[in-house]
Amino acid sequence: MVYTSDIEIQSKKRTEVINVTTFVEKKLEESRISDGIACLFSGHTSAAIYLGIDDKWVAEDFVDFTNSLVPNKPDLKHNIYGGKNADSHLKSILLGNSITLPITGSRVDLGSWQGIFFAEFSGPRERKINIKIIGE
Amino acid sequence: MVYTSDIEIQSKKRTEVINVTTFVEKKLEESRISDGIACLFSGHTSAAIYLGIDDKWVAEDFVDFTNSLVPNKPDLKHNIYGGKNADSHLKSILLGNSITLPITGSRVDLGSWQGIFFAEFSGPRERKINIKIIGE
Amino acid sequence: MVYTSDIEIQSKKRTEVINVTTFVEKKLEESRISDGIACLFSGHTSAAIYLGIDDKWVAEDFVDFTNSLVPNKPDLKHNIYGGKNADSHLKSILLGNSITLPITGSRVDLGSWQGIFFAEFSGPRERKINIKIIGE
Repeated sequence: MVYTSDIEIQSKKRTEVINVTTFVEKKLEESRISDGIACLFSGHTSAAIYLGIDDKWVAEDFVDFTNSLVPNKPDLKHNIYGGKNADSHLKSILLGNSITLPITGSRVDLGSWQGIFFAEFSGPRERKINIKIIGE
Repeated sequence: MVYTSDIEIQSKKRTEVINVTTFVEKKLEESRISDGIACLFSGHTSAAIYLGIDDKWVAEDFVDFTNSLVPNKPDLKHNIYGGKNADSHLKSILLGNSITLPITGSRVDLGSWQGIFFAEFSGPRERKINIKIIGE
Repeated sequence: MVYTSDIEIQSKKRTEVINVTTFVEKKLEESRISDGIACLFSGHTSAAIYLGIDDKWVAEDFVDFTNSLVPNKPDLKHNIYGGKNADSHLKSILLGNSITLPITGSRVDLGSWQGIFFAEFSGPRERKINIKIIGE
């Protein structure tokens, strides 16, 4: 069985972390797949999807850390030649846009403190996560 | 066919790299799936799973590099507001907790020098890798 | 249905970004799978696979950024004890070697400006991406 859907997201800041765990869980319920894997994918090139602790301070540390690691320098080539958000594209590449999750007993096998997050690096924007679930 | 299992790990240091390739290969044998994909997932928020060279010096360079890239600063918000290991959570997000491997002819399609590693960023602890194999 | 193939790549520089999107799309067509997931995997330990914007300036920024983030210092242990490309192995671990893509209506669900890239960190070399597609 293959199930396809997507999750719509509205980000509100330039850099922002959005917990999408409950949306993924709703899609899983809708899929009626109890055993398999779920592929979460973002088709955006200035955002990312990641797994991490569901903790508001770590979310803020993450925003500060990524901004400090990849500052939006004016001398980045993408910025010199007409772009404005070279940092957003580099952060997106570094963090990644595709994660695969095991599904067992109709549940995502997340750890106790773990959540699924959408990282916006060039908001505010309307965004989407593609979800594909394969299994029985 | 869907196969589900997990691999138990005991880390011994705060930051440590553990080669889990042979454990994954044993699970694959047990699954009797010869063609498909294997999803390895860690439900921990202060650890990671990665693919890399099986070389003890690169493992040590990796520990030094991640500690230098994400030092456990006392002014990280997670540390200010009651946490102790903000760095571990950020390293976990950055390195990732989900990898997918192709299975062909009952073997993981790893490169000659490649291994599958569990990265502990907040040990010593008992840890677990979830493994889900889908295929024929 | 399970489809297996690989994509051959010839890199020309030490650090280089190669757009492999059209090669992946050709393999998908060949697979005749219209709905499912594709796992792209690299068995190399000094290269990576990533999703990002198809923009030559961001590709150049990416090369500069990774070289600046992980310089090939002579005092990296892998370099001290006989290796020459410790940086390449660390970059490979950081960027990752496995991505999973949703396939819908016989197409990869890529965003408008998104591409699939092979990142060479220790070229020039002959390289390969393993592709495994599962679905209906």
